Amino acid sequence: MYLDIQKPQPVVSPGEFAIAAVGMDHEHIYGMTRQLLAAGATLKWAYDPDPEKLAAFCRAFETVRPARCEQEVLDDPQVRLVAAACVTSQRAALGMRVMRAGKDYFTDKAPLTTLEQLAQVKNVIAETGRKYAVSYSERLSNEAAVYAGALIENGVIGRVIQVLGTGPHRLRPQRRPAWFFEKEQYGGILCDIGSHQIEQFLAYTGAQDAVINASRIGNYNHPQYPELDDFGDAALTGDNGAAGYFRVDWFTPDGLAAWGDGRTFILGTKGYIELRKYTDIAREKAGGHVFWADGTGEHYENVLGKVGFPYYGQLILDCINRTENAMTQRHALKAAQLCVQAQLLAENVTQGQH
Amino acid sequence: MYLDIQKPQPVVSPGEFAIAAVGMDHEHIYGMTRQLLAAGATLKWAYDPDPEKLAAFCRAFETVRPARCEQEVLDDPQVRLVAAACVTSQRAALGMRVMRAGKDYFTDKAPLTTLEQLAQVKNVIAETGRKYAVSYSERLSNEAAVYAGALIENGVIGRVIQVLGTGPHRLRPQRRPAWFFEKEQYGGILCDIGSHQIEQFLAYTGAQDAVINASRIGNYNHPQYPELDDFGDAALTGDNGAAGYFRVDWFTPDGLAAWGDGRTFILGTKGYIELRKYTDIAREKAGGHVFWADGTGEHYENVLGKVGFPYYGQLILDCINRTENAMTQRHALKAAQLCVQAQLLAENVTQGQH
Repeated sequence: MYLDIQKPQPVVSPGEFAIAAVGMDHEHIYGMTRQLLAAGATLKWAYDPDPEKLAAFCRAFETVRPARCEQEVLDDPQVRLVAAACVTSQRAALGMRVMRAGKDYFTDKAPLTTLEQLAQVKNVIAETGRKYAVSYSERLSNEAAVYAGALIENGVIGRVIQVLGTGPHRLRPQRRPAWFFEKEQYGGILCDIGSHQIEQFLAYTGAQDAVINASRIGNYNHPQYPELDDFGDAALTGDNGAAGYFRVDWFTPDGLAAWGDGRTFILGTKGYIELRKYTDIAREKAGGHVFWADGTGEHYENVLGKVGFPYYGQLILDCINRTENAMTQRHALKAAQLCVQAQLLAENVTQGQH
Repeated sequence: MYLDIQKPQPVVSPGEFAIAAVGMDHEHIYGMTRQLLAAGATLKWAYDPDPEKLAAFCRAFETVRPARCEQEVLDDPQVRLVAAACVTSQRAALGMRVMRAGKDYFTDKAPLTTLEQLAQVKNVIAETGRKYAVSYSERLSNEAAVYAGALIENGVIGRVIQVLGTGPHRLRPQRRPAWFFEKEQYGGILCDIGSHQIEQFLAYTGAQDAVINASRIGNYNHPQYPELDDFGDAALTGDNGAAGYFRVDWFTPDGLAAWGDGRTFILGTKGYIELRKYTDIAREKAGGHVFWADGTGEHYENVLGKVGFPYYGQLILDCINRTENAMTQRHALKAAQLCVQAQLLAENVTQGQH
């Protein structure tokens, strides 16, 4: 590889860092748990109010113990971190219960759905000193995205001018639960899958804050789900002048092998990077594709299986050492704030079409 | 090819349709002339006030006759169409002189730089019945872009939801004339290279009109050219609800073989198209790459040398038959209006940085 990056190793020994998985409304809980285990965590408890979801999770992670109730998990002093992927609008409430029980929290994105929840979460963080970490997996759990961060850090493309992301997703409505189509619960498309994009913008540009210049939502082709946004986009400008734009949608066609042809284009003063994160259309079904051009030439690397996911081990060490190397609390919640604001400000461009 | 498209043939015989080339401030005049000649036009006159530019042009087109002044061209009743690529801010004035001389006009883009010029041009079109055609070459003179139009027309991706374009360009400032860096003359980046993007948005979505939701300009890295916008972008929404976004910039790095890695992503209800118009980074130096995914699979075609450029022959026939098959006058000027508006509305995100 162009950059000399070593795949991260487990950061703790078995039994040293106990976690629990609580809230399995989104399957992301599986990936979140696996990544923490790969970084050395020990999975002690699992809980979901739905016995079927809990049983399925316990089949996937055979050594885990199913709890009888949430409180049983929160009462266990050995548990350091609770990973959760409950319904989006309930993530803040669960996180506050977790933090008030003295544990750190690691939630699926979006981490919350309203500015009121954000204010409450900030209060409980201040009150408890606990962490409210967020699984922005489209960067943290994607090796191409991790490698892009390293290229930028090494100055390969100079100063970052713009981050342009597309996040198409496959809908498969028959496999989605009812809450997925209720806006109060999923938060709208810019809050939901838009949160990944805003987090990437902040991470790659180094912006501490941003303003939303314009945002749109629409339901172009799913009148049977009136509260679904099947399209959304937003332009934002960072406090350092960097520009951001992203589009998210639920229009991945059935003929695409991957769930979505997500791309990230990072324009810098000395070059640009393109990530084909999950597939290389009509060329290769798997992802991990990093392209860049700079002053010297055109470059390509496939980093699948080569760079790993440093976030998870860093998060565990942050919990142990009370540091913020994986991601600052400020950054995680700034992305949350901006995605909620983008959703609130969004113009509905298909209003009245159905 | 997936679509059965024949390369267009000349539409007129030698001597049947005489043209002139006037105004050679931008090298685009060479491509415009060549395309018209390939469609059957006969190049009779050339003129530019700069004897060096005129001589260079006459060396490239050996049979052309250099005129002693613009009026000599305008006075020739045989000349049907005048192609021109003078300084952007002077294109409207030249066009009005051409139309008042009873000839059709074919200008490089952007076709004008102010809304006042637009109003004047519309008046002279109404007064003379002549055409003010515009060389939006990033669609009309690009086979991938032509093929995308045919795919859309054939319903391959369903209804178009969004057109997302990137138009990076190489600056090479030492090879650019002084007017290129003076905003009053080149019109700003959204007016200049942004005009291509807005025209593509209108063409692929079928929108008759649009509103600019937000636009930005910036000079991130060229303080020595204070009036250069080295970055610009805009979000727009069509009167049919279709969404548009584009970014343009002057940051093509020296290591890229092509002058710019221009892309177009067209999202539809049944699939999407990606154009790698001028190169396929780290894979192939030449352009013409069309990728798409639909309900049946992932597809790739390289259409270089296969579909040709139907616009130019259609334009000649439109001039002869007074039809509008190549492009409507309304469409050509709507793109012009919107790019000027995007420029006028743009927030300067780097103001005060230098």
